[in-house]
Amino acid sequence: MMLDGALNGCDSAMTPPDTRPLQQALRTVLGPDRVCADPTALARLARTTAIEGTTPGLIVYPRTCHDVAAVMKLARDHRCGVHPVSCGRNWGYGDACGTRDGQIILDMSRMNAIVEVDAELGYAVVEPGVTQGQLADYLKSNNLPFTADASGAGRDASIVGNVAERGFGHSQNGDRFANVANLEVVLPNGRILNTGLGHFPGARAAHCYKWGLGPSLDGLFTQSNLGVITRLTFWLVPKTEQFAAFFFLADREENIGDIIEALRPLRMRGTLRTAIHIFNDLRLITGAQLAPARVDPESAALSPAEITALRRQHGIGAWAGSGALYGSPAEIRAAAQAVKRALRRVRGVSTVVVINRTQLEFIEAFVKPLKKLHWCASLVARVEKLRLGFDLLSGIPSNDSLTGGMWRAPGTIERPPTPGDDPLDYRAGFLWVSPLIPMRKHDVDTFLALVKPIFARYRFDFQITLSLVTARALCGVSTISFDRDNAAETARAHECYQVLLTTLFAQGFIPYRMSNLSMAAIPAGTDSFFDLVHELKQHLDPTNTLSPGHYDPLSSAAL
Amino acid sequence: MMLDGALNGCDSAMTPPDTRPLQQALRTVLGPDRVCADPTALARLARTTAIEGTTPGLIVYPRTCHDVAAVMKLARDHRCGVHPVSCGRNWGYGDACGTRDGQIILDMSRMNAIVEVDAELGYAVVEPGVTQGQLADYLKSNNLPFTADASGAGRDASIVGNVAERGFGHSQNGDRFANVANLEVVLPNGRILNTGLGHFPGARAAHCYKWGLGPSLDGLFTQSNLGVITRLTFWLVPKTEQFAAFFFLADREENIGDIIEALRPLRMRGTLRTAIHIFNDLRLITGAQLAPARVDPESAALSPAEITALRRQHGIGAWAGSGALYGSPAEIRAAAQAVKRALRRVRGVSTVVVINRTQLEFIEAFVKPLKKLHWCASLVARVEKLRLGFDLLSGIPSNDSLTGGMWRAPGTIERPPTPGDDPLDYRAGFLWVSPLIPMRKHDVDTFLALVKPIFARYRFDFQITLSLVTARALCGVSTISFDRDNAAETARAHECYQVLLTTLFAQGFIPYRMSNLSMAAIPAGTDSFFDLVHELKQHLDPTNTLSPGHYDPLSSAAL
Repeated sequence: MMLDGALNGCDSAMTPPDTRPLQQALRTVLGPDRVCADPTALARLARTTAIEGTTPGLIVYPRTCHDVAAVMKLARDHRCGVHPVSCGRNWGYGDACGTRDGQIILDMSRMNAIVEVDAELGYAVVEPGVTQGQLADYLKSNNLPFTADASGAGRDASIVGNVAERGFGHSQNGDRFANVANLEVVLPNGRILNTGLGHFPGARAAHCYKWGLGPSLDGLFTQSNLGVITRLTFWLVPKTEQFAAFFFLADREENIGDIIEALRPLRMRGTLRTAIHIFNDLRLITGAQLAPARVDPESAALSPAEITALRRQHGIGAWAGSGALYGSPAEIRAAAQAVKRALRRVRGVSTVVVINRTQLEFIEAFVKPLKKLHWCASLVARVEKLRLGFDLLSGIPSNDSLTGGMWRAPGTIERPPTPGDDPLDYRAGFLWVSPLIPMRKHDVDTFLALVKPIFARYRFDFQITLSLVTARALCGVSTISFDRDNAAETARAHECYQVLLTTLFAQGFIPYRMSNLSMAAIPAGTDSFFDLVHELKQHLDPTNTLSPGHYDPLSSAAL
Repeated sequence: MMLDGALNGCDSAMTPPDTRPLQQALRTVLGPDRVCADPTALARLARTTAIEGTTPGLIVYPRTCHDVAAVMKLARDHRCGVHPVSCGRNWGYGDACGTRDGQIILDMSRMNAIVEVDAELGYAVVEPGVTQGQLADYLKSNNLPFTADASGAGRDASIVGNVAERGFGHSQNGDRFANVANLEVVLPNGRILNTGLGHFPGARAAHCYKWGLGPSLDGLFTQSNLGVITRLTFWLVPKTEQFAAFFFLADREENIGDIIEALRPLRMRGTLRTAIHIFNDLRLITGAQLAPARVDPESAALSPAEITALRRQHGIGAWAGSGALYGSPAEIRAAAQAVKRALRRVRGVSTVVVINRTQLEFIEAFVKPLKKLHWCASLVARVEKLRLGFDLLSGIPSNDSLTGGMWRAPGTIERPPTPGDDPLDYRAGFLWVSPLIPMRKHDVDTFLALVKPIFARYRFDFQITLSLVTARALCGVSTISFDRDNAAETARAHECYQVLLTTLFAQGFIPYRMSNLSMAAIPAGTDSFFDLVHELKQHLDPTNTLSPGHYDPLSSAAL
């Protein structure tokens, strides 16, 4: 799609403008090795797990916020769009693609300093290139009494990038945006800003207190194109005398509403303080294996009989959930008792396990010799999933959790994937839809009754995670996995995705985030909220240089 | 200071402009009984607990957000400032005073609908006139399984007004701004906006999820003059099987650093989920009685001997703290054990009491007959304070907690106050300084060593509450109480206040909020944060109509 090194400006000129002066200027300011126009590298960043990506015009690698500021100014002066990526692992939500063709991708992966970790107050100051694996390793190797919230996005996912899109992890700090402070932001005009208390010289509580004095501006710079976050303070999770994970299984699909009702009071009062994640059968199975050979080549979906067999093989039912408990042994015992009492009352809940590290290691030692026995596969698989869940909950991100993206990836036929592989290297196709749902049976049931038939109509496997991300809301992250080498299936996936989004917006199930490549699906209508967002954008970035259209539907619609 | 009904425009014209056309226009739109230019009423709103208030030009009483919008537009067209107040109980932080003379006070106390309470998801949708007493009564009389976070500001304080200034209460939802969603805001140009998910038609999670989709704008409208909040969703605190309050006493001032070190891990891991408030001796004493006759008329401060006697009389030491525990009896036992273990290790901590409602009522029944016995006064006083603390923690606001403001109020000599009285009716003088402090010994000790000598130098009683408002920060709310009838003492209070603010900003102890009448004390300097705030203001309110200067130090400084 792209000519060699040429740039499509963010204005809609028919012929690409001559970008050599911009390239020259960027090389002068950043150094020649920090500007890349290599077609192979550009094509790499054009790849997507979605239907169609965008192709960048250039890639730049800033070292500091001042570099970022310089890029913003030069891009503005040369009328070229800029799109920031932290580590480029935004799979399923637009990957490392810019919002339009021809932009400069501001690749901040080399700004990867863990600037400071405070072992008393429990925070880490990190740059956009810091990955969750890197921070977990740092905390462990320095034997610090803290862990970091981990998400299922793998070891190489950026923390700042995830916060900028308001992602969620698994720990008590799972609502990540609620657990950061003191953002350093580069505005579209190149000015550098510190939010919260960070802009007051010597402010002692800058890393400890989110809101600051005066308007709280942090929210302006998440899910937006109003600034580039180049540093932030990430609050850590204290290690306690004991840590326990709990897991539960439910047999039947229709049990879920009652499970939500049982968990809500515990979540709201703080007995449960972590984000609870509940996976359906196929979400668990796709996370553990590749798609089996299709029986019906016209369908991307497994048959009910296949699903039943896979459930049996993996030792699961319709749903499996996980969460964690912190504190003294007595506190954990009391909380575990409350969780068990609540869940065991729910019809269909067959298993509730609360397990600490010692117990898990004991079980693993017991199961190890059984691995070769075929008839023990279900038990072994269960224990392996226990470990994965346990690690995530205790702040150890794992690449094993990425396997989900490989389900139906055509590239896996040529070469079986190993943990940590980039789904894009396997031409994996998947799209995520992640609406917010009030935490109660009625809304969850309504949501599932709405979404499941759409997956069936378009013949895709229905994979979903219900995440109790806050005390009152859960998020239903559904995945459409498709075979990119199959044009008809890809077209069907696209249509399924559009229908899902349209239906969910119309029924009031609003996504908590959107893919970079689907912003036009946000119904802006006559919405005074997005009017204001667009106005702020026009004021702060009159040339529309930074990620045009990103969460600014009035601008996307105009294209 | 004010001529009859005349207005000082927000522009600095020497002669007040003729405001009759504005009054006429407001009466036409709102109705004649909703616009007040009565000099007595205007003078009432000019009263302040601070050094000098501002006098309004008019008062208007909107009924709806559309009324608010109409006022904003008329005021803009007539170039007159507008300052919103919810219930006008912002004592110590600017009271009901506008930011400058001659403004329209937008009194929203009559917009007092509890629009909706959801008994499953635990939220209340409230207008600015809803008081914390009103909401507590509503929840109780409807026998709902929730309580509302209560602050010490008394039954008649507005919830929305407190959220708009990012105040704190005592429960697990003590960080109030963190526990609201879906603001309805009137912009300075009269447009009406819903934040979070509230602007999407039929969004089901609008009341349950704070951040929304796209930039999160809520923060823009707190501690700011960028919009008027006319409605919001306030999350409630679930009642649990059991509720217990805990209280502790410490003998010596120097114990505080170790107490903070002991509490921090419990606060950070979530064993303690409420805002813990720790009062020093004089803060407790001023909350319980009026100032005794002064021994030294040159000093507003008690002597060490007097303080010792009062401590003995009230049965307290240097510090007293409170917090609450929620959950099942087993959870509360486990948490209580953790709290006791942590605090009893601290040298100087003499008492740690964990008490539930049944136990408290038993003690009260036991103490009741002792009330008349003089030698039991200390015991009785302790139990009364237990009840006050217990009620606040369990969501029952009380007017008893307002007595603190009456310490040294000259009006109390003429007429002893009763709970619920307005401190302004007694010409009470007090100024609050409320800096944020990292939650660790070193910073707390540094802070106290800085502040206490300033109180001593200016001969004022050192009253302070240390509030562990979040997991990592505490807030040191110090009060300067002064006798407004004594000109020299008033001047000293003013100087003490200015020196405190200057010193604290210089030493990095930044206040979490400021008085409406002291915005010029914020050092804006070359701060790009306040540059942006000022820019946003100029864009959203080019006529500087809404609360000019409010958390916009670049605008205050320009005056």
